[in-house]
Amino acid sequence: MPWKKVNPAKIHRLFYPQVPVVITAWFKGRIGGMPAIWHTPLSFKPPLVGVAIAPEHRTHEMIIGAKAFGVNWLDFSYAKQVGELGDASGKDYINKLSAVGFRTVKGRASGQPLIAEASAVLECLYSERHRVGTHELIVGRVVAARADAGFNDYWDHARYSPLLYAGTENRRGKSWVFKSLRGKTVTVPLRNQPGTKESNE
Amino acid sequence: MPWKKVNPAKIHRLFYPQVPVVITAWFKGRIGGMPAIWHTPLSFKPPLVGVAIAPEHRTHEMIIGAKAFGVNWLDFSYAKQVGELGDASGKDYINKLSAVGFRTVKGRASGQPLIAEASAVLECLYSERHRVGTHELIVGRVVAARADAGFNDYWDHARYSPLLYAGTENRRGKSWVFKSLRGKTVTVPLRNQPGTKESNE
Repeated sequence: MPWKKVNPAKIHRLFYPQVPVVITAWFKGRIGGMPAIWHTPLSFKPPLVGVAIAPEHRTHEMIIGAKAFGVNWLDFSYAKQVGELGDASGKDYINKLSAVGFRTVKGRASGQPLIAEASAVLECLYSERHRVGTHELIVGRVVAARADAGFNDYWDHARYSPLLYAGTENRRGKSWVFKSLRGKTVTVPLRNQPGTKESNE
Repeated sequence: MPWKKVNPAKIHRLFYPQVPVVITAWFKGRIGGMPAIWHTPLSFKPPLVGVAIAPEHRTHEMIIGAKAFGVNWLDFSYAKQVGELGDASGKDYINKLSAVGFRTVKGRASGQPLIAEASAVLECLYSERHRVGTHELIVGRVVAARADAGFNDYWDHARYSPLLYAGTENRRGKSWVFKSLRGKTVTVPLRNQPGTKESNE
């Protein structure tokens, strides 16, 4: 205290900074992916994770169609690619991941695409979904989890610098803002200016 | 890549670092609170938020009983108090929040306790719950949201330094590890050493 009222449309920003994960899926010959910050682990055993996605996203349709999805953690050095992925629409690309410069590998446990540059990946099988207001919480059961040398029981922050989403800023056009644990800030210009629709900005 | 397999019991640690919120509730004359890192916004309109809590937690029982709860964001300078709150059991205290040094105020919209030292607070009315493996996702509808001068459309990191949970470390006893965006680390010793049960360590 003292506190002042927060605009109800901006409540989600109180949760920032949040580590974005890239949700990936293969469906009907297309590879899709989107950064998501509305996610959380949900269970230890079985290992279940949840991601809340607006049903109008192409990736939502692909996950439901594929009945599986990948979860990818990218190091801070990939801020630009993650931002561009958030700015692009899946309907424009056969492989949206390669369109922003990522290489994809096929996960053996799920058949879903994973990002080769990722520091860690999960392969999830679709488990259940719950409509909650504007979004749908999709729950996945983790059937494979892998990480590079940056993770060893815990993340080793000397080897892995987490990417933290902190919102947008508007200086000569709108940009995503990403922070690191080391005091760095990177801004990634939005080309498609989603400001007219509701988005996690 | 190259990736190696991650132990399924440690998958939740890939989501670190995460900003803990303190979930607060008043029920049957007792004030409870616990830090939670398994949380996410779920909807813009109505504003809905979710927190996954193991049903054996006293705070879970209190939220379900009260049909409401508070969500509190504490600045990095309160790492010690937030850690101690995670280490204490609600059954030992009439007011668990004051036991770790926080002052409580009663939220006018929900009747639930809020932490006076918090940089931002939500008052939520219980909306629905979904059992998901070991945890239960509790969904709350936000009926009041307030923040101090550190939040103005977005968090102002010059005024508010987010607290980021990064796991535990074990040097002469186990400690919680918290990171800031400014390269700082604070460790808070665990007195009750919960290692024997499943916990978000």
